[in-house]
Amino acid sequence: MPEKLRVVPLGGLGEIGKNMMVLELANDLIVIDAGLMFPEEEMLGVDLVIPDVSYIVERRHKLRGIVITHGHEDHTGALPYVLSQLRAPIYCTRLTRGLIAVKLEEHGLLNDADLRVVQAGEKLKLGQFGVEFVRMTHSIPDSAGLAISTPVGTVFHTGDFKLDHTPVTGQPSDLSRIAELGKQGVLLLMSDSTYAEVPGYTPSERTVSEALDRIMADAPGRIIIATFASLISRIQQVLDAAAKHDRRVFVTGRSMLDNAEMALEQGYLSTTEDILAPLEKMKKVPPERLAILTTGAQGEPMSALVRMANRDHRHIEIQPGDTVLLSSSAIPGNEMLINRTIDNLYRLGAQVLYSRIANVHVRGHAAQEELKLILNLTKPRFFVPLHGEYRHLVMHGEIAKAMGVAEENVFVLEDGEMLELDGRRAEVVGRAGADFVYVDGLAVGVDRVVLRDRRHLASDGILVIILTLDKHTGKPIGRPDVVSRGFIEAEMSDSLMQRAGDVVLDALGGAEHVSARGDANTRIHESLGRFLYDETGRRPMILPLTVEV
Amino acid sequence: MPEKLRVVPLGGLGEIGKNMMVLELANDLIVIDAGLMFPEEEMLGVDLVIPDVSYIVERRHKLRGIVITHGHEDHTGALPYVLSQLRAPIYCTRLTRGLIAVKLEEHGLLNDADLRVVQAGEKLKLGQFGVEFVRMTHSIPDSAGLAISTPVGTVFHTGDFKLDHTPVTGQPSDLSRIAELGKQGVLLLMSDSTYAEVPGYTPSERTVSEALDRIMADAPGRIIIATFASLISRIQQVLDAAAKHDRRVFVTGRSMLDNAEMALEQGYLSTTEDILAPLEKMKKVPPERLAILTTGAQGEPMSALVRMANRDHRHIEIQPGDTVLLSSSAIPGNEMLINRTIDNLYRLGAQVLYSRIANVHVRGHAAQEELKLILNLTKPRFFVPLHGEYRHLVMHGEIAKAMGVAEENVFVLEDGEMLELDGRRAEVVGRAGADFVYVDGLAVGVDRVVLRDRRHLASDGILVIILTLDKHTGKPIGRPDVVSRGFIEAEMSDSLMQRAGDVVLDALGGAEHVSARGDANTRIHESLGRFLYDETGRRPMILPLTVEV
Repeated sequence: MPEKLRVVPLGGLGEIGKNMMVLELANDLIVIDAGLMFPEEEMLGVDLVIPDVSYIVERRHKLRGIVITHGHEDHTGALPYVLSQLRAPIYCTRLTRGLIAVKLEEHGLLNDADLRVVQAGEKLKLGQFGVEFVRMTHSIPDSAGLAISTPVGTVFHTGDFKLDHTPVTGQPSDLSRIAELGKQGVLLLMSDSTYAEVPGYTPSERTVSEALDRIMADAPGRIIIATFASLISRIQQVLDAAAKHDRRVFVTGRSMLDNAEMALEQGYLSTTEDILAPLEKMKKVPPERLAILTTGAQGEPMSALVRMANRDHRHIEIQPGDTVLLSSSAIPGNEMLINRTIDNLYRLGAQVLYSRIANVHVRGHAAQEELKLILNLTKPRFFVPLHGEYRHLVMHGEIAKAMGVAEENVFVLEDGEMLELDGRRAEVVGRAGADFVYVDGLAVGVDRVVLRDRRHLASDGILVIILTLDKHTGKPIGRPDVVSRGFIEAEMSDSLMQRAGDVVLDALGGAEHVSARGDANTRIHESLGRFLYDETGRRPMILPLTVEV
Repeated sequence: MPEKLRVVPLGGLGEIGKNMMVLELANDLIVIDAGLMFPEEEMLGVDLVIPDVSYIVERRHKLRGIVITHGHEDHTGALPYVLSQLRAPIYCTRLTRGLIAVKLEEHGLLNDADLRVVQAGEKLKLGQFGVEFVRMTHSIPDSAGLAISTPVGTVFHTGDFKLDHTPVTGQPSDLSRIAELGKQGVLLLMSDSTYAEVPGYTPSERTVSEALDRIMADAPGRIIIATFASLISRIQQVLDAAAKHDRRVFVTGRSMLDNAEMALEQGYLSTTEDILAPLEKMKKVPPERLAILTTGAQGEPMSALVRMANRDHRHIEIQPGDTVLLSSSAIPGNEMLINRTIDNLYRLGAQVLYSRIANVHVRGHAAQEELKLILNLTKPRFFVPLHGEYRHLVMHGEIAKAMGVAEENVFVLEDGEMLELDGRRAEVVGRAGADFVYVDGLAVGVDRVVLRDRRHLASDGILVIILTLDKHTGKPIGRPDVVSRGFIEAEMSDSLMQRAGDVVLDALGGAEHVSARGDANTRIHESLGRFLYDETGRRPMILPLTVEV
């Protein structure tokens, strides 16, 4: 039987194949990326979501390595949670290694990890897989696409990318190598679809430099710039613009400090100043000579910028004359938090610049013309759009068809769908479990039942009924105690709870008799549920508890 | 003492002065608009938010009327909830009356309401206030600005507006009358700030007609158009485009049907066809001759479009060949719901068009150049930016200053702030209660405590401890019962609950002794809280209940 290649996207909340991807042969398996996802609104109380790796764990004997395309959290952040189950070497470029090391160190796991640095152009042998890192530009330096040779043909995986011909740090994408791969024949292209709905080209990161330059020149007082902690090139742009206009830069926010320190050590950031100096030193610098780099551009509730906006930051008090830049675009779902932060900064008298009104951010992903260019260079037989919500994958698929990929060779996969390819044909052969694992607090241990209960509690609260029964006769002793939380305001509560007690006694056949125990709970639920809904239009969780004495 | 005019914005969640505004003289008071707000994410389980009208109730003796600028829910939707407290005549234009009547009828309140239709240009005498309705264009016909004469001078309140010179139904804004008011002297301008951050002009509603025309011509099968139920002009545009391309239109979705029926009766919609026919009749029409108008453009979970996307609609099953239009833009906070709906429609094989990729919607509010035009025509002495989040008000204020309004005469108010003006000076004299009232289910009765408890329950669930005590000795009888919901998954729960019981007994000084009752609860909270946080990193609500026997 001829060898087949199986491709399985795992983990991607909304965005398919975003956070983890499996490539599997008869005797070898590699994992591409191991990212975390941020919980959706209805995943109440959940801190993080990570991919369910049981598909890989079941095949651990043939796992040859975890290959990471770049250092963003949605591609690396699950490592601290899954490494103990996977136990395989991690292959990545140097900056990516630095960012992963910061993360693993935080979790006290750095010593257990086998991190191996790979150069762009270098070829790894991972079982029957040959993996070559190909330089790609993205909003973080040292990003890579992967050219993967397999017995059935070559796979090209773009990673996250845009085609920035003038990147702020590092070199542009290695289009020559991609063209060469295309000439030699690409069996399967898997390509970033995040901005497949945007026509034209994504502007270079350089365009932000011009805006930063003008703002550093014009701002009358302090400048506070919030951006992603991993957006190393943006940090460099800020350092450059600040140096030009003789502003001293300070960094605040834990993750930004950690990343900046690492990037300085590794040579990905260059400055002549001590940007990691304690904020106390800021006092000696006049406002018009000051720039502060910080986290919180997504309105994250505990971040430095949000604390400033809420007058809750230990060292920085926003005042009229301050200029605040949000050098970021909103991750869908964060719009309200960001808007609230901007409003609160305005309330304190700051001038606020954000992407809607100023040129302070560019997208990090390729638009349609760049996607076409990659399709043109690689000329793949098969195409799997990656990294995007379903509609983006569909659009990217349409682009591929328009570029000449046969309609039946374009596969818009859902997470867990197993695509099998030999050299000539491809088909979806089934679906692996590709559930999510919810991280809340110290550990996993949140499942669908817990989330369903939280949603129920969140929407209408809870009513607890304690019924004391005589263990010999089964008769209730006294009236039931009824206590509620999150259900109704206190002043309306007393009489309602009183009447709820009556309803419970009625449901049980009066104070004289309690029928079969199993039946009693159902009866309480039903009659109390109906009573409360009629009275209030709400359906709190009902929790009847019996004490036998 | 000379008469003073007091202006108090009330109610506006994020958007200041959006939903209700009070104008008050010594002996007279009028209310402008009475809208509802949609709850923010953290207002768990809340269906609607309405303004707290206690400021008005305290002054009900001088309330002369409620003046409504236009028929959108965020300007009318609180009427069913506040009318019984306010009991005043409602003045509005004819279409607005129709929409309010539909709403009041739903609540069985239409007979109690005193609805009075006013023509544009007509002048009302409401105590010492003279109120003139001035025709303004917005995304709903029959919108009005208000020219209000008072003993201290003339106030112009724009209502929601954009300057559409070629509206789909009705006439353009009455700029001549506004210019005339300006010439006679405007003391105070209050103007819509929703799009104060957008440069240039807002395009005419007409531009959407061209897109609709092309789509009706090209779509290979059925066309399903989702939009706001109150966007009457959009409905007319759809009817016109469908008629031109010989497509039969059906309407589905309760609120859309109610509004369309009323608008047809009142002459705001015109068609030769029976667009209100039951959907069963659809079966006889071939797909390429069909267009369906529906609700759900914001991804509202129970709406017709979302039911279609979830394969849960009784009459309409989405299939390949269908074209779905979302003729709307996302209200901030709804992005995730909308994206999910689009993705699910794509999964069923539909082609989906929405404002990001097609020209199927235009904004309903004025952009910067239109705001300048109104400032230029009215030349007000004082300026209060309205209807917008705080940053929009600040920007609109800056525009006013650039247009010549004195810096000290621009007032960016927060809800509840009381601005007092005589003919020459204005100042903020204090702050009225401008809280919100939360509507959940049948009634109000949700307060901050209830919401706080819901947030607590939502994030980490609840742990109920039932402790049975001997009422004579105060000693615990047996072990405490510990039950949790929404806290931790079942398989980890048993041993944890067991150990939690031990912690409770320990906290009470062992099984032998329970100290003072009040103290016991505190001790249980503290030690159990610490134990659970150490074990799980979570902080569930802890509810200790004692049963004495």
